[in-house]
Amino acid sequence: MNISSTKPISAFSAAAAGARLGPVKIERRPVGPRDVLIEIDYCGVCHSDLHMANNDWGMSAFPMVPGHEIIGRVVSTGAEVSDLAVGKRVGVGCLVDSCRQCEACEDHLEQYCAKGFTLTYSSPTKDPGELTFGGYSKQIVVDRNYVVMVPENLDPAAASPLLCAGITTYSPLTHWKVGPGMTVGVIGLGGLGHMGVKFAHALGARVVMITTSPQKGEDARRLGADEVLVSTDAQAMAAWASKFDFLLNTIPVPHDFNVYMTLLKRDSTMCIVGAIGPIAALNTAPLIMGRRNVAGSLIGGLKETQEMLDFAGVHNITADVEVIEVAAINEAYVRMQRSDVKYRFVLDLATLS
Amino acid sequence: MNISSTKPISAFSAAAAGARLGPVKIERRPVGPRDVLIEIDYCGVCHSDLHMANNDWGMSAFPMVPGHEIIGRVVSTGAEVSDLAVGKRVGVGCLVDSCRQCEACEDHLEQYCAKGFTLTYSSPTKDPGELTFGGYSKQIVVDRNYVVMVPENLDPAAASPLLCAGITTYSPLTHWKVGPGMTVGVIGLGGLGHMGVKFAHALGARVVMITTSPQKGEDARRLGADEVLVSTDAQAMAAWASKFDFLLNTIPVPHDFNVYMTLLKRDSTMCIVGAIGPIAALNTAPLIMGRRNVAGSLIGGLKETQEMLDFAGVHNITADVEVIEVAAINEAYVRMQRSDVKYRFVLDLATLS
Repeated sequence: MNISSTKPISAFSAAAAGARLGPVKIERRPVGPRDVLIEIDYCGVCHSDLHMANNDWGMSAFPMVPGHEIIGRVVSTGAEVSDLAVGKRVGVGCLVDSCRQCEACEDHLEQYCAKGFTLTYSSPTKDPGELTFGGYSKQIVVDRNYVVMVPENLDPAAASPLLCAGITTYSPLTHWKVGPGMTVGVIGLGGLGHMGVKFAHALGARVVMITTSPQKGEDARRLGADEVLVSTDAQAMAAWASKFDFLLNTIPVPHDFNVYMTLLKRDSTMCIVGAIGPIAALNTAPLIMGRRNVAGSLIGGLKETQEMLDFAGVHNITADVEVIEVAAINEAYVRMQRSDVKYRFVLDLATLS
Repeated sequence: MNISSTKPISAFSAAAAGARLGPVKIERRPVGPRDVLIEIDYCGVCHSDLHMANNDWGMSAFPMVPGHEIIGRVVSTGAEVSDLAVGKRVGVGCLVDSCRQCEACEDHLEQYCAKGFTLTYSSPTKDPGELTFGGYSKQIVVDRNYVVMVPENLDPAAASPLLCAGITTYSPLTHWKVGPGMTVGVIGLGGLGHMGVKFAHALGARVVMITTSPQKGEDARRLGADEVLVSTDAQAMAAWASKFDFLLNTIPVPHDFNVYMTLLKRDSTMCIVGAIGPIAALNTAPLIMGRRNVAGSLIGGLKETQEMLDFAGVHNITADVEVIEVAAINEAYVRMQRSDVKYRFVLDLATLS
């Protein structure tokens, strides 16, 4: 069965100036032999959607249909796809293709593809429109290799942020082997941070929420944090010096990350997943004095994204979300800019006609 | 035998203003039961001596006798020291004491002692003078645990820089398991860098000297570098992108370290050993895009310092040095400030009366 989906379908397209989004009709490519046609139910609204819509990183291509936290159902599959039945609950994250041949791809770490992966939206493609179009849309056609299965026990709207915020935190937590007996700090309580707390807790670590906002403490504990460390409290910071086995830094903006480095034990790592680009002067003293590490991590590969979803299914982990109609997307962007969301907006694509 | 060494002995003391050094008489503590009295033959002149003499780090205490690359012979030992015969060639590095009880000390990594180690000079002590006094001196009294044995086949003057420059590069190279099959970049060709090249080569790695100065290429090859990468050559830098398993950054001053990060393979580390303090804005992009790490490392523990010396003995590795009379120390400091030394000055203490 080779279904054409080239008739125009509804989507929301961004304009760079002020990140306004409005309805548009786009074309998807026909369903190829290795493809899956997905009816999109929900799509999380990632902070990077806002950056991309605003062209903050200078890499945006327009017209743009944002959205890479996609949850939907299989509508049809190409002839060579045998393991995804129609009606199956599936997800699509940040990537829809990669070279499949480099060392990273062979290691199931497509996010580090040496030749560059294809982003779910705003990336060049041979598809109609010559750009990939994301999840603020009714449908999407994706190669089977880049489609993951979503446990049916998870609420689909709340599960959608797992595809980006979830894997972005789960991947470094598991790469650095977070587990029982370890003390893990999650820095920043937003879309990424709240997932980091949930996963670190479920992985068995003692979790400390590190925040500048004492009022976030109660929420952090509800999400799974064992303790709360207010980073502006110099005495508390000193008391926690050299106590952490791992720090997950989810702060999305430039900040003085050096203040957290002395919290790490010798030979331990702070992994930055929130802020991309120059963030502050690196002070080498805490690195040299404790053989400490600063690292970064990018989303996750397809294999570990599937593992993360399976783990989330077993532990019943989803995001805390506010489901909105597509017409509210511009208002949601404004609220995101003032961090007025707990902790992720999710578009209900049933409200897109 | 418990020999008193409290009679004044000759040393060179620093004054902060302009780092001038002049002759002075100091007292050493009597030789205790676990102590070793060492007649100093040679002492390397480390760049940190200059920083300390100038109080660049705000931690200097005066009067100061610099010097922590000490090579000498055992003159006498305390009653409980049974493994160091009189006349034995020994060395003393940057540390002369630590708490001996914390996890770091128990792991033989005294340089990361949780309670703070005692530096070989300018550190508080119960000894006469209430400060430790270093190796620009005729004699030193050191606890046996902080004395290392120096292979007799090594030239003692050229071996002295092993005690700081040597271990500072050997420790991270071995911690990050540098060996055959790996491509290692040594950034910066000075006192640390030239030791890094020698050790990385002897450990079996393919060594690339990374420098801003093309004219250093010939010397780098003589020291053991297989290739030379000029970091100001954008085309060459691009050709080496993602090729390195490890980078040892020995640049002693603030600099844009980010330009080297893209040279690293995924999951690889650049270890900074040269510049301490704020050096440049951290750009998280190369970290995030390749799960790369920036780390630091401080000298080495006593156990690994002994291992390094044994390794140097087997591979006949010493520093390239310029031996000077003690009267030339102030001129040497001036030359060091303009990097006019290949690659380490060493004081001949026989010239100190």
